[in-house]
Amino acid sequence: MNDLPLIECIANVSEGRNSQVIATIVQAIESVPGVAVLHQTSDHDHHRSVITFVGRGPAVAEAAFRLVAEAARLIDLDQHYGAHPRVGACDVLPFVPLGSATLAECVALAEQVGARIGAELGLPVYLYEAAARRPERRNLADVRRGGYEALKASIHTSERKPDFGPSVVGKAGAVIVGARQPLIAYNVFLTTNDVKIAQAIAKAVRASSGGLAGVKALGLLVDGRAQVSMNLVDHQRTPLHRVMELIRRECQRYGVAVLKSELIGLIPQQALYDAAAWYLQLDDFGPERVLEQRLMQYVNVLE
Amino acid sequence: MNDLPLIECIANVSEGRNSQVIATIVQAIESVPGVAVLHQTSDHDHHRSVITFVGRGPAVAEAAFRLVAEAARLIDLDQHYGAHPRVGACDVLPFVPLGSATLAECVALAEQVGARIGAELGLPVYLYEAAARRPERRNLADVRRGGYEALKASIHTSERKPDFGPSVVGKAGAVIVGARQPLIAYNVFLTTNDVKIAQAIAKAVRASSGGLAGVKALGLLVDGRAQVSMNLVDHQRTPLHRVMELIRRECQRYGVAVLKSELIGLIPQQALYDAAAWYLQLDDFGPERVLEQRLMQYVNVLE
Repeated sequence: MNDLPLIECIANVSEGRNSQVIATIVQAIESVPGVAVLHQTSDHDHHRSVITFVGRGPAVAEAAFRLVAEAARLIDLDQHYGAHPRVGACDVLPFVPLGSATLAECVALAEQVGARIGAELGLPVYLYEAAARRPERRNLADVRRGGYEALKASIHTSERKPDFGPSVVGKAGAVIVGARQPLIAYNVFLTTNDVKIAQAIAKAVRASSGGLAGVKALGLLVDGRAQVSMNLVDHQRTPLHRVMELIRRECQRYGVAVLKSELIGLIPQQALYDAAAWYLQLDDFGPERVLEQRLMQYVNVLE
Repeated sequence: MNDLPLIECIANVSEGRNSQVIATIVQAIESVPGVAVLHQTSDHDHHRSVITFVGRGPAVAEAAFRLVAEAARLIDLDQHYGAHPRVGACDVLPFVPLGSATLAECVALAEQVGARIGAELGLPVYLYEAAARRPERRNLADVRRGGYEALKASIHTSERKPDFGPSVVGKAGAVIVGARQPLIAYNVFLTTNDVKIAQAIAKAVRASSGGLAGVKALGLLVDGRAQVSMNLVDHQRTPLHRVMELIRRECQRYGVAVLKSELIGLIPQQALYDAAAWYLQLDDFGPERVLEQRLMQYVNVLE
């Protein structure tokens, strides 16, 4: 099993306030041997937690199933109101290839875990992004449109028929399972509490309304601040610095500025190198110029 | 010997044009078991190469000695004219602690290698920075003032008496051996060929003339461009982005801009993280947010 490549799973869970519930869900993941929880982050206003874990395919699939079961048992969406859109207790469950793993392997995992959630937990499951079986389900925002409340009213339509599980919405809602390349979840806080400005800037920068390719963005109010909340789905083509500089320019238009930014979950190292090199105008920079990277390459010579 | 911590040595050699000479010097370093050459860079206009290698103390000391012997044999300073100040064939030879190594261990290595160069190669040796035996020799620029040509005329004065070796300057000049913390060698090219502007900006940013602490800077003409050539000796206190932004501001004053920048040798990873986090305004960023860093921590769980 050690020959299998590592798969990352980033569970988005609709609980950002009760630390006991979050800890129980994390324990369910960690109960599977060969799985490591790399990072977790919870947001009170979003009322949402993001838990990143890795392992070989079979171990990650088992951990993903156990976490969905715990989330469905512990979270009641009829009592859940947060700033972030959601359709389920475990809202989104993407599998992401690391190292030599492929997107196709992640699609297979999504199908296997999705089928099991539908059959054993009786929850409706939608497959999205690379795992989508219908083109209109590729985009997460389309699958989630209207959230839990709208899904309850519309799940019996043929349009919203789940890919797995029954056409029944209980208190745990549905689970959106998929496969995708790594993304960067990046939020920018503005020096205003006017959420309309964040919404206007989100509209300006996101691909779907004429902005940058590979950028998804929402304007939200978080901690009393206007926030542009984003996913960068292809940071190699549309790097962080280009997104940040466009936001700064749009901020000027509205007479505000960037207060600070934050990452949700983890960021690939290369994205930070790219940002540093761009801002410092290091034209010929590559990871081979980083002392720690070079040391790792020569570890055999030096031992 | 594997229990000893790694030591880095960054040899500055007065040959940046003849690749055969440089290759021979690199081979002398690599002839020592347990030593890895991590990086090398040669500059035609500076007529200088910087070779970075690592290993445990005894191996690095042996490799440093062999490279000085080869440089002294192959390089004739009477035929050497470059943009960069220099006093010897192997001009500067600092030892730098990595990981759990200490500066005191590097001082001991500098003394040991310096004594051997003086005794076995008959070259004058000056100890600098943390290894300096006289306060006026701590600063490299002071030890090197006037270069090879001035040293020939003044080596018999008590002021310039070498710490090791004879008061005799042959065609290989002298060797400045020392111990220091890691530094970042960083050059910024301007959109002008007016070296006076680079010199004025260098004066504005360097500590010795009222600029930023821990910044050493020269204005040079390289590849037909004005260049601010710098060493940042304490990047944790005086980070790259602060230096870069001050240079950009000074450039505006002179109606020029930064064309590009370059690193000489290697850069500690943290310096790139710090620059990315500053420019992206990532207030709560730390290396634990980097996917690759987290994976390394869990390598035992995942195997």
